[in-house]
Amino acid sequence: MPQHSPRELPEGDPFGADTLPYGVFSTAGEPGRRRIGVRYGAHVLDAAAAAAAHGSAYAPLLDAPTLNPLMAAGRDVWRAVRAEIRGWLDGPHFHALDDVTLHLPFEVADYVDFYASEHHATNVGRIFRPDGDALTPNWKHLPIGYHGRAGTVVVSGTDVVRPSGQRKAPADAAPSFGPSLRLDIEAEIGFVVGTPAQAPVPLEDFREHVFGVCLLNDWSARDIQAWEYVPLGPFLGKSFATSVSAWITPLDAFDEARTAPPERTHPLLPYLDDAKAEPGGIDLRIEVRINGEVVSRPPFSAMYWTAAQQLAHMTVNGATLRTGDLYASGTVSGPEPDQLGCLLELTKGKGPWLADGDEVTLTAWAPGPDGTRIGLGEVTGRILPAR
Amino acid sequence: MPQHSPRELPEGDPFGADTLPYGVFSTAGEPGRRRIGVRYGAHVLDAAAAAAAHGSAYAPLLDAPTLNPLMAAGRDVWRAVRAEIRGWLDGPHFHALDDVTLHLPFEVADYVDFYASEHHATNVGRIFRPDGDALTPNWKHLPIGYHGRAGTVVVSGTDVVRPSGQRKAPADAAPSFGPSLRLDIEAEIGFVVGTPAQAPVPLEDFREHVFGVCLLNDWSARDIQAWEYVPLGPFLGKSFATSVSAWITPLDAFDEARTAPPERTHPLLPYLDDAKAEPGGIDLRIEVRINGEVVSRPPFSAMYWTAAQQLAHMTVNGATLRTGDLYASGTVSGPEPDQLGCLLELTKGKGPWLADGDEVTLTAWAPGPDGTRIGLGEVTGRILPAR
Repeated sequence: MPQHSPRELPEGDPFGADTLPYGVFSTAGEPGRRRIGVRYGAHVLDAAAAAAAHGSAYAPLLDAPTLNPLMAAGRDVWRAVRAEIRGWLDGPHFHALDDVTLHLPFEVADYVDFYASEHHATNVGRIFRPDGDALTPNWKHLPIGYHGRAGTVVVSGTDVVRPSGQRKAPADAAPSFGPSLRLDIEAEIGFVVGTPAQAPVPLEDFREHVFGVCLLNDWSARDIQAWEYVPLGPFLGKSFATSVSAWITPLDAFDEARTAPPERTHPLLPYLDDAKAEPGGIDLRIEVRINGEVVSRPPFSAMYWTAAQQLAHMTVNGATLRTGDLYASGTVSGPEPDQLGCLLELTKGKGPWLADGDEVTLTAWAPGPDGTRIGLGEVTGRILPAR
Repeated sequence: MPQHSPRELPEGDPFGADTLPYGVFSTAGEPGRRRIGVRYGAHVLDAAAAAAAHGSAYAPLLDAPTLNPLMAAGRDVWRAVRAEIRGWLDGPHFHALDDVTLHLPFEVADYVDFYASEHHATNVGRIFRPDGDALTPNWKHLPIGYHGRAGTVVVSGTDVVRPSGQRKAPADAAPSFGPSLRLDIEAEIGFVVGTPAQAPVPLEDFREHVFGVCLLNDWSARDIQAWEYVPLGPFLGKSFATSVSAWITPLDAFDEARTAPPERTHPLLPYLDDAKAEPGGIDLRIEVRINGEVVSRPPFSAMYWTAAQQLAHMTVNGATLRTGDLYASGTVSGPEPDQLGCLLELTKGKGPWLADGDEVTLTAWAPGPDGTRIGLGEVTGRILPAR
């Protein structure tokens, strides 16, 4: 086993000692043995091996094929494990990132996608419903969301086959079938639930339940979506694939990056009213690259609804939470033309859309302590032709 | 262990030798040991014990805490196991149904809810969108569906706590929060996926993938739903609870009950065109009881879209199928006033709705060979007051 010890990281590396995201990896020598790794610069700490070598009480949680057991253990354990791992960074048990295979880091229970950017919802509303108000009447009163397909959440690096389906433009006499002609991305931030809940989760308990944060690309076939989504919402236009980071960055890593969300223009019901809560935003700066070229820089700090509000809303009806529940922010778009999180907005609904062979990569970082950067694992995916 | 041998069933019992649904049970003596049982009249065959006693090669699939391993084994195994179980019915290894505890019989992967009754969609469209066409333009071209919350699927007999949430009637100045005032049922048929798929499932492969059939009550808070569902579909109005039968009746048990669906009024794209396929309907006759009184008798044979079409549609975009995927028909409503599958339709949107303490029970049977009846396990649930 390679025994790199990457004590020195390049200045500004977003995967330093204050980030320490968790993933699941295997090596070419033991392809069937998945265990938990921690990213440090361009290396991966074999957390299972380090835990065993240090006699850590948490070794069973770290020598596991998914993050779910660690996620289920609760925040006190998350903090204790993170503190122990900090002490293992100057030891052995590292692999070069290029030498390992990364896997979907957790078993997804339910997947919910929100719609929390006022800029995105306004832009999309104008395109999809040109004759109505851009924002629906409920938008400022509750974080709109819907359930997506958990079984098609895939890890960064997985190719995405262009979906086929029905479409019908308003001028068409009848629907037609074929590969999507309007394949799009949605740049989002995902939140991964660790601690389950049997009762509504109030705003102030957000940190007790959310284990970590990732990037998420909610691939979207706009032609399929436009024809199918009334009245029960998006279905096949989204369910073919949703890509997430191979690395889940602990929520606690973003303490320095908390920001106040935009001013609320409508009074909120008490379960959503965060005026007196800790700042619910996170100053994450996202970059969207297509074939290497930056096409947008969406600012997560511009989101109207926070992840804590989304969790409170999602559970206020009594819906239980499970370890592995994943919820996403909705497309992140800011007010500026170069801050839009999908091609639908970037091209004002006119395209061009994704072509076969295109590779889309999302990256993001937030300010950390002492000028450091806290990174999210990238999400990348390449479009394969329809089957 | 009780050793009943229920050789003689009452005439017309829908759980005879041609039904043999699978469930998961435990006994008071061994509450932690869940294993697979097969319902036979008012008794449960301990399939794990019978398989062991007979030296069946399928014993490991039957001595399991969920149906998932058996479901994943594929149709050849399903048929072989069913044939073996027929030979065990005159032996011992039975418990009285009243002596066992029934559990959620399978681990739910993704849950999708369709909207396949033309009568229901028309009635609801008139109530929810009085100024528009009752059916949306896509309704006759594709089986509309959406993802629901897999984590809140519960087994028959589980109490349902009245959900709380936001509502706003058009005349209200602002939304308010509180326990739902319009709690409703939806009588549906659920289909449980056994064999996974990595590619679209054509109509003719339906039986290779669907393991069995159950009743499903898609509890619905109409006031929460009406305020939240535009533009991304139902969310908290449905996600608090979905009840399913404790018994999954094998799809093969309904061979005699296959019926042609209603005449198609619009041409269908090839992947949905079932004109030349085997009859896609099932002549299931549902009864809805509230506090013991029959309030409706919805006929499943009246559904416009079949379960085979729904499966073909759900996967045509490349979305993969997993063992444990559950999809439901949508509310079953027939053309007559006493055939409507929810209170929204039965009361024309005016109520009365479910009161605390109300108990709702769905039962269903289909014609079997030689005048027998093939039953679905009942779905029952009682409303508890909001917390």
